Amino acid sequence: MEHVSLAPLSRVAICGGTHGNEMTGVYIVREMQRKKVSAAGSFSVTPVLTNPRAVDVCRRYTDKDLNRCFTDALLSSPVTDSTPYELKRAQELNAQLGPKGGKEAVDLLVDLHNTTANMGLCLIFYSLDWLTLHLLKYIQNKISSVPVRAIQLDIPLSDAYSLEAVGKHGFAIEVGPQPHGVLRADIFNVAKKAVDLTLEFIQEFNAGRTFEGGEVEAFTLVKSIDYPRDSSGEITAAIHPELQDNDFKLLRPGDPLFLSFSGETLIHEGEELYPFFINECAYYEKKVAFQLARKTTYSFPSVSVEKD
Amino acid sequence: MEHVSLAPLSRVAICGGTHGNEMTGVYIVREMQRKKVSAAGSFSVTPVLTNPRAVDVCRRYTDKDLNRCFTDALLSSPVTDSTPYELKRAQELNAQLGPKGGKEAVDLLVDLHNTTANMGLCLIFYSLDWLTLHLLKYIQNKISSVPVRAIQLDIPLSDAYSLEAVGKHGFAIEVGPQPHGVLRADIFNVAKKAVDLTLEFIQEFNAGRTFEGGEVEAFTLVKSIDYPRDSSGEITAAIHPELQDNDFKLLRPGDPLFLSFSGETLIHEGEELYPFFINECAYYEKKVAFQLARKTTYSFPSVSVEKD
Repeated sequence: MEHVSLAPLSRVAICGGTHGNEMTGVYIVREMQRKKVSAAGSFSVTPVLTNPRAVDVCRRYTDKDLNRCFTDALLSSPVTDSTPYELKRAQELNAQLGPKGGKEAVDLLVDLHNTTANMGLCLIFYSLDWLTLHLLKYIQNKISSVPVRAIQLDIPLSDAYSLEAVGKHGFAIEVGPQPHGVLRADIFNVAKKAVDLTLEFIQEFNAGRTFEGGEVEAFTLVKSIDYPRDSSGEITAAIHPELQDNDFKLLRPGDPLFLSFSGETLIHEGEELYPFFINECAYYEKKVAFQLARKTTYSFPSVSVEKD
Repeated sequence: MEHVSLAPLSRVAICGGTHGNEMTGVYIVREMQRKKVSAAGSFSVTPVLTNPRAVDVCRRYTDKDLNRCFTDALLSSPVTDSTPYELKRAQELNAQLGPKGGKEAVDLLVDLHNTTANMGLCLIFYSLDWLTLHLLKYIQNKISSVPVRAIQLDIPLSDAYSLEAVGKHGFAIEVGPQPHGVLRADIFNVAKKAVDLTLEFIQEFNAGRTFEGGEVEAFTLVKSIDYPRDSSGEITAAIHPELQDNDFKLLRPGDPLFLSFSGETLIHEGEELYPFFINECAYYEKKVAFQLARKTTYSFPSVSVEKD
């Protein structure tokens, strides 16, 4: 592949508290605000606590999941007295950090999340462009304490519903396992390292370093699987102990999925796919017990910053 | 020690959902209700979902922590329009399963809880009487998949604030680590086994079996430790990675307690004690980072049921 030149990055936003009970991002952003971080060499850095009302009550959200409010339709919907708090907040954030898809948007938006699933460190992307593929590879090369993986959501930008879609480039950093409402030092440290490496990469990129081409794997979401339920909608089984904590371990036909409260095992019957977000707390209400992905390898060219 | 005869147990309550986001008890009680469990041989069994309003919204409580409402003072306080839901519910439960300290109370009340701390299976008691000491030993002897420990809260019965104080005998079963709002099959299975062993013990006891005397260890709560905070009350440090998940591992002077967000380690300076409830989610609002206990050995005599 031919070498590619890319525009320098001049404005970066580091966001946390989009879900108010995911504590890693809350405390990383607060610490950056306390230290008055506003620049890192060649570019500006804006730490943003994105859902302060949910942070105050330590819940995922107060009226509506903020991280489902960034579709083009919702961002352009009229605000009335009955508009949910989080939808108003999404429009404020889009004005501050976007507009989504617009020339004035921040160059890179990183949003910090936690999961109760045993997912290690995941970078979640709508679109894997040359810059974010390089950033992913850079972080993978420099973190060895936990697995570093990429998840791709194959959704058109207009329907992209989460905050990172507001930046010109963007991704979510998802780290687990950590109970919501709890702050673990090990999880904090690995997320903080991913943020620091992101800023380091941009600094080196802006300074003119050439990053060699290569390959990287990503997991593309195929579908979500609900818990088994009875006729009244009550859950009748838990994630099977052999599936629990085994995010990204290939699921083969016949592998156990659920263990019912009366002791029966339910097995996987479809194609071979990779499970993730296994037993994520916040997904019970979304009727998602886990998600399934296919693994893809991406090649990318060497890149460097455009010369003036 | 001389042999002791004790009254038979005729009424047992198995309670769950006292904290509405601690899922093990919710699902064990629901499964018992679905199977219409109401007796086990010589005694009645009543499964009770104790805080249905909190269960519905999957929160610890809606107005006030139900499991702090069972002091004599609160149970006898007048109910008005502004009485918190959980205090009204505590008085209802006291009428149904008590009254606390009264002759009509259930013989044994077991309340099912979860913690985000790595505590294995803990039985929590206000008073370790001959019956509960034997029950503890019985469960310890029959569960080997996780550590089984006892915690004693040295509080006069009148001030005892949690639901298990309503029974003639009572204890809480605390199982972790499990994120609140999440149901793990491994945690469900170990709690279910403890419930089943409790019922099995009572059945054997009522049938006339003699249980030999012996010894058992318990951890007695000494004090609670808060997180380090700045002048505005914000937490400035997380539980240190060397303390995290090490519940019941003896803490010595010089051992690390906290890791501040700027990277400094804070150490333990007091006497040697055992930490537990390390990084329990629900205790952030109670300003408790962990609790400290002293270990005591209890001797108990052989027991059997009183002959008519």
